[in-house]
Amino acid sequence: MASSTVAVIGGGPAGLASAASAASVGADVVIIEKLGFLGGRPIEENYASITPYLRSAEEAMGEVIANTLAHPGVSVRLNTTVAGCSGEAGDFTLELDGPGGTESIEVAAVVVATGFQHFDPGRETQLYGYYEFDDVIALQDLEAMLKEGRVTRPSNGEEPKRVCFIQCVGSRDRQIGNEYCSKVCCGVASKEATEVRLAVPGVEVFIFYIDMRMYGYWETQIYWPAQEKHHVQYVKGIITEVLPKDGRLLVRGEDTTMGRPMEVPMDLVVLSVGMEPSPGTRKMAEVLGIEQNRFGFIEAPKGPLDTVATSREGVFAAGASLGPADLEDCSSSGGFAGARAAAVALSARGALR
Amino acid sequence: MASSTVAVIGGGPAGLASAASAASVGADVVIIEKLGFLGGRPIEENYASITPYLRSAEEAMGEVIANTLAHPGVSVRLNTTVAGCSGEAGDFTLELDGPGGTESIEVAAVVVATGFQHFDPGRETQLYGYYEFDDVIALQDLEAMLKEGRVTRPSNGEEPKRVCFIQCVGSRDRQIGNEYCSKVCCGVASKEATEVRLAVPGVEVFIFYIDMRMYGYWETQIYWPAQEKHHVQYVKGIITEVLPKDGRLLVRGEDTTMGRPMEVPMDLVVLSVGMEPSPGTRKMAEVLGIEQNRFGFIEAPKGPLDTVATSREGVFAAGASLGPADLEDCSSSGGFAGARAAAVALSARGALR
Repeated sequence: MASSTVAVIGGGPAGLASAASAASVGADVVIIEKLGFLGGRPIEENYASITPYLRSAEEAMGEVIANTLAHPGVSVRLNTTVAGCSGEAGDFTLELDGPGGTESIEVAAVVVATGFQHFDPGRETQLYGYYEFDDVIALQDLEAMLKEGRVTRPSNGEEPKRVCFIQCVGSRDRQIGNEYCSKVCCGVASKEATEVRLAVPGVEVFIFYIDMRMYGYWETQIYWPAQEKHHVQYVKGIITEVLPKDGRLLVRGEDTTMGRPMEVPMDLVVLSVGMEPSPGTRKMAEVLGIEQNRFGFIEAPKGPLDTVATSREGVFAAGASLGPADLEDCSSSGGFAGARAAAVALSARGALR
Repeated sequence: MASSTVAVIGGGPAGLASAASAASVGADVVIIEKLGFLGGRPIEENYASITPYLRSAEEAMGEVIANTLAHPGVSVRLNTTVAGCSGEAGDFTLELDGPGGTESIEVAAVVVATGFQHFDPGRETQLYGYYEFDDVIALQDLEAMLKEGRVTRPSNGEEPKRVCFIQCVGSRDRQIGNEYCSKVCCGVASKEATEVRLAVPGVEVFIFYIDMRMYGYWETQIYWPAQEKHHVQYVKGIITEVLPKDGRLLVRGEDTTMGRPMEVPMDLVVLSVGMEPSPGTRKMAEVLGIEQNRFGFIEAPKGPLDTVATSREGVFAAGASLGPADLEDCSSSGGFAGARAAAVALSARGALR
């Protein structure tokens, strides 16, 4: 009898959703995670809270992990990577590299949920001085600060009086090759801006943006409260450089609504870095022999009405391995991919008519 | 033995995805559709093509319908509505009103996929003269025209020389109570603008917008080609009124980038109307006793990491019944909801360990 196991590669939001979904309909599931813990980026990068309701990331992910592991038939391999794949849908052999050495496992289907990495703002664009100036940080750096419960200027440990976010760093940018919009940065920056306002009394917070892409409910869940309740100041503008001046940072650019140049001093500059395929996503595409799009994310060749199929039968993808994704996307596509993989697994063991 | 059937209410993109997903893991499925055909809004409203690749809506939905019906165990009740629901997860009784009269069926779980309706631009806001001027139409009216293969001015049957789209009609609007962003209208308008440029030689096409919310891949799939290849002209501006003048329409407002009033003559004005809950979504919330949010969509009380659960155990929701959704959202949340419902059904018939 062929294996009825689904392998889920990646233990973040999408992977956990995939595993729970596959297990809920009767498949055995093994989650293969390269790190020593589950939870993905929100845990690895010490996110303070998640969109849209500022719920603790640790608490929310803890609940998802517990719910997933409560399903009978779910097992987890930590500190383990997939080094090889042979066979075909219903009958794959995966080579695993884990703490106990190399091992082969038989699985019926695979879900790739290896996610994204944050764009490195020192790569190719040095405009904003991420590696030069202590007080230029990125979204995930501020998350970690917020989780610590204290927002300070890295240069001197003092609370900032003026903070700004620069949107679209590493997104919508032909020059660096990331032409897509990273989808979540507008929402995440607005969430963090709100949290900074709550954490630092009297602080002024600005967001410099091209378009505020607060799609769907984020408009009312995040964007309006940020403006009306928390007085975050949104400025449509293009920032061209960040320079040190008198112990602060001078942010230079153009206010495109007012149609004039601007030059504003800031104590802390937060770069809203975009999403790129994680090294694991690139590596798994290679190992599993599935197509990538020109940005390196997993290609979904079936179009908008079949979001999780890849170019290889029996291999599905979910979450940010497919491209920019919010948590809702990870839950939905994860749950769908898990079901699709389970269907292959159940069929392989003859459990379906 | 309890029923092992999943009822999917609504035969559009999300409902079909739910049904296929539930059936693929071994559940019996009945799709309950109030119209006489499957396919949902794209078919009912004669959409010409779907985002992002301008594929024929009829062809794409036809393929989804065929794939769904190919699963053993999927049956369809057309011209049928759900009039009542009693029981609990694993053991519901639904009252159906169909061509053969009233009937009760036993089901284990329910997926609500009853979708949205287009905002009625004559309701509460008369600014744009949708019911007054023949040449003011809405996105879905233009879709139907594009499907016919001929874009003309309804007033005189001639091809337009200048066409504009007005974004956010019935969205992001506190006055009418639709404070959310409808998510898809930027993409749909840009897709249609591209199609108008392809259909009418020499036509000028403008899109008046607040923010262009071309999230994720839509940036490169739709937005850049619309501008660079098809020369659609995007103007950040607020349109305050549309008036008839010399046989054309005068569009008045403010160009917010240039910071000056504008008054431009148009031959055809397309209102980018937003999404509202369909009457079926409101009705099913009532019949099934599930919570709605303040906009009338189905409430998803579990938050971003569990997108398809409703306030009633055993009842799940998918697609635009939950709020503004694109086709990818319908596929993913549909597939996930189908799996969740199947898990209840399989457990009810003792098919799971």
